[in-house]
Amino acid sequence: MKVMNFKKLSVLMAALLACGIGAMAQQALWSAAEVVSPEVNPDNTVTFRLKAPKAVKVQLLGDFIPNRLVDTPSGVVEMPGIADFTETEGGVWEYTTPEPLKPEFYSYTFVVDGLKMSDPSNMHKLRDTGTINDVFIVKGAEAGDLYSINDVPHGTVSKVWYESPKLGLQRRMSVYTPAGYEGGSKRYPVLYLLHGMGGDENAWLELGRASQILDNLIASGKAKPMIVVFPNGNPALESAPGHGSNGFSRPTTALPKTMTGEYEDAFPEIVNFIDKNYRTIKSKKGRAIAGLSMGGYHTLHISKQYPDMFDYVGLFSAAIMPYEGVSHPVYDNFEEKLATQMAKSPALYWIAIGETDFLYKPNEEFRKILDANNYKYIYRESEGGHIWRNWRIYLSEFLPMLF
Amino acid sequence: MKVMNFKKLSVLMAALLACGIGAMAQQALWSAAEVVSPEVNPDNTVTFRLKAPKAVKVQLLGDFIPNRLVDTPSGVVEMPGIADFTETEGGVWEYTTPEPLKPEFYSYTFVVDGLKMSDPSNMHKLRDTGTINDVFIVKGAEAGDLYSINDVPHGTVSKVWYESPKLGLQRRMSVYTPAGYEGGSKRYPVLYLLHGMGGDENAWLELGRASQILDNLIASGKAKPMIVVFPNGNPALESAPGHGSNGFSRPTTALPKTMTGEYEDAFPEIVNFIDKNYRTIKSKKGRAIAGLSMGGYHTLHISKQYPDMFDYVGLFSAAIMPYEGVSHPVYDNFEEKLATQMAKSPALYWIAIGETDFLYKPNEEFRKILDANNYKYIYRESEGGHIWRNWRIYLSEFLPMLF
Repeated sequence: MKVMNFKKLSVLMAALLACGIGAMAQQALWSAAEVVSPEVNPDNTVTFRLKAPKAVKVQLLGDFIPNRLVDTPSGVVEMPGIADFTETEGGVWEYTTPEPLKPEFYSYTFVVDGLKMSDPSNMHKLRDTGTINDVFIVKGAEAGDLYSINDVPHGTVSKVWYESPKLGLQRRMSVYTPAGYEGGSKRYPVLYLLHGMGGDENAWLELGRASQILDNLIASGKAKPMIVVFPNGNPALESAPGHGSNGFSRPTTALPKTMTGEYEDAFPEIVNFIDKNYRTIKSKKGRAIAGLSMGGYHTLHISKQYPDMFDYVGLFSAAIMPYEGVSHPVYDNFEEKLATQMAKSPALYWIAIGETDFLYKPNEEFRKILDANNYKYIYRESEGGHIWRNWRIYLSEFLPMLF
Repeated sequence: MKVMNFKKLSVLMAALLACGIGAMAQQALWSAAEVVSPEVNPDNTVTFRLKAPKAVKVQLLGDFIPNRLVDTPSGVVEMPGIADFTETEGGVWEYTTPEPLKPEFYSYTFVVDGLKMSDPSNMHKLRDTGTINDVFIVKGAEAGDLYSINDVPHGTVSKVWYESPKLGLQRRMSVYTPAGYEGGSKRYPVLYLLHGMGGDENAWLELGRASQILDNLIASGKAKPMIVVFPNGNPALESAPGHGSNGFSRPTTALPKTMTGEYEDAFPEIVNFIDKNYRTIKSKKGRAIAGLSMGGYHTLHISKQYPDMFDYVGLFSAAIMPYEGVSHPVYDNFEEKLATQMAKSPALYWIAIGETDFLYKPNEEFRKILDANNYKYIYRESEGGHIWRNWRIYLSEFLPMLF
């Protein structure tokens, strides 16, 4: 056997690997950002930085900055707060929050001379409908711990496709199976968790931190191990933008079929697929359904359309009732179907909404119906409006009540 | 039963839902971009747009623009190509490629008055080591079709955690199971597909379009249905940045333990986990391993360290041999271990590299050893260098040779 010249090769490799990091990143198109941003400081203030030597003004929009009132042609409007950066040495602009931020999951973006731009130093961005936000987390008590990835057993998150003969499409969903599911033989209850308008099968997992909340609540014994299914609530679409056969399409909220009854009507296809392919408890007592906003609307209608399917129902900031001009058998005989559902005594009917939510009033009207008929439900009113912060809180409170 | 005032409610809902789309996006922080970018035109030219009324100069960096030679203090360096936008009406800047682009998966970013910025109109961005690139796909023959999500049965992609007692961590991997896996009883062969330095368990699926390539090759009968496992190749880390217990950490290429023998040594933990939890063919003939760059290095060492584990081996632009100063039993007796592996006649030993790859020479040296010893392998030399475009091609060619 020819003996290899190890020394020569290893010296060569040292040189090659030193330059290799650059070359390996040659498709990265430009070097990594030279500043750290955002930086969560030890006292939980947060510093943002941008190197922009030619900029005249650098600003920050963030959901941790108090909203401001802005005069517009259509009147005074509440707008996200904005803060000014200060230029420091070497063209680096900097902003530090004046107060420590409470533990939470936050979003922001930069504005450079009037142009909104993503933070080039932050690799962690999430799409919310038609915008990309930079995100960070402040760890710590309650929300911070619950939304963080901690050293606890982690469930599996899968992107799974199912055939929908009713909708004529292959469709994508996300499925969370709890730690221990793989290689086990136990059967689990299932929560079907529905997103809002403009969301998709990724929304609850990305913006809602659902898998972190589940991992943490299950690990601490506060929630039962369960499977959670996140379908896509627009029956005209296969999947989230970028994950379907129309390629890197543009997200839109102008969705023609989101609240037309078709999704609700076809929902048993999803339940059947899950019951066939996962180790589920295949009965009403092993199934829950909940959703936010449009997903609350879907939950309302699906749960009464199939009154033997779900024992636990959660309406989070729900868009209650069909809207003008929509007709589908699913929406017919609303009160009779609700009466049937309630006569079967669901184990939980939970309604949550924020006091400034634009859907507060229809929820109030709906509760009047429930009250007038002595239907049992639990009502949870929170601060704030129609925002992910509230939906994460509602999920954290809802999960421990299940199964 | 009190009859609900449907008409009143439905009118209310119409109004609320009309304004609701705005309110539902209230955490989006700013309105969606007003221009379409990128736009793949019918002739496969591509138009990029940015609304930036105050900008003086807007440029485009993209991997579809020919590289340029730049004078730097350290000599002439090849840099990514750059193109200038033209200002059109209303402060909208526009650039259209002078020629149609070939079907491919492309990356780019904008440069506004010298400041690199992500395209605010494009929701589809991918991280490559420490940078975020905007991406798009030009569909069509070969690459374009192979990397697209087509109307074929889709496999499941899961993010799964396993315990590594040897490394003292819970660690995250990605797992592709082919269409039909769920609810079936068939056993499948497994490919272990390893990433390069700066990559992670997401890299092959995001930048490498691995699940699309698999779906498409399996659907057309060109590749056998198989499970593909994408572990994280840095044994000091739990996961990709943002998916582990250190939160939204910054990605780095300064990874202390990536090529030290520990990962290779602990690799059977991954194989055992997969064999325990998935319906695999639990033998050498049912296992393949391949990797790009550092993952090729890992593949080289893992496959000879465990010569009864893998029947198919693929080195894609592999970083061959240990480098200076690294000592680990995995690297001892290199030639003897290689002789043992080759004596057991692996079904395939495949080496691929680009003619301008900075790792070309060490691969050539390695092939000399193989040739001198009459070890059987297949050699594939391509155009180009150390880039994802080549690795997608290599994967597309490697998969049909397996199992």
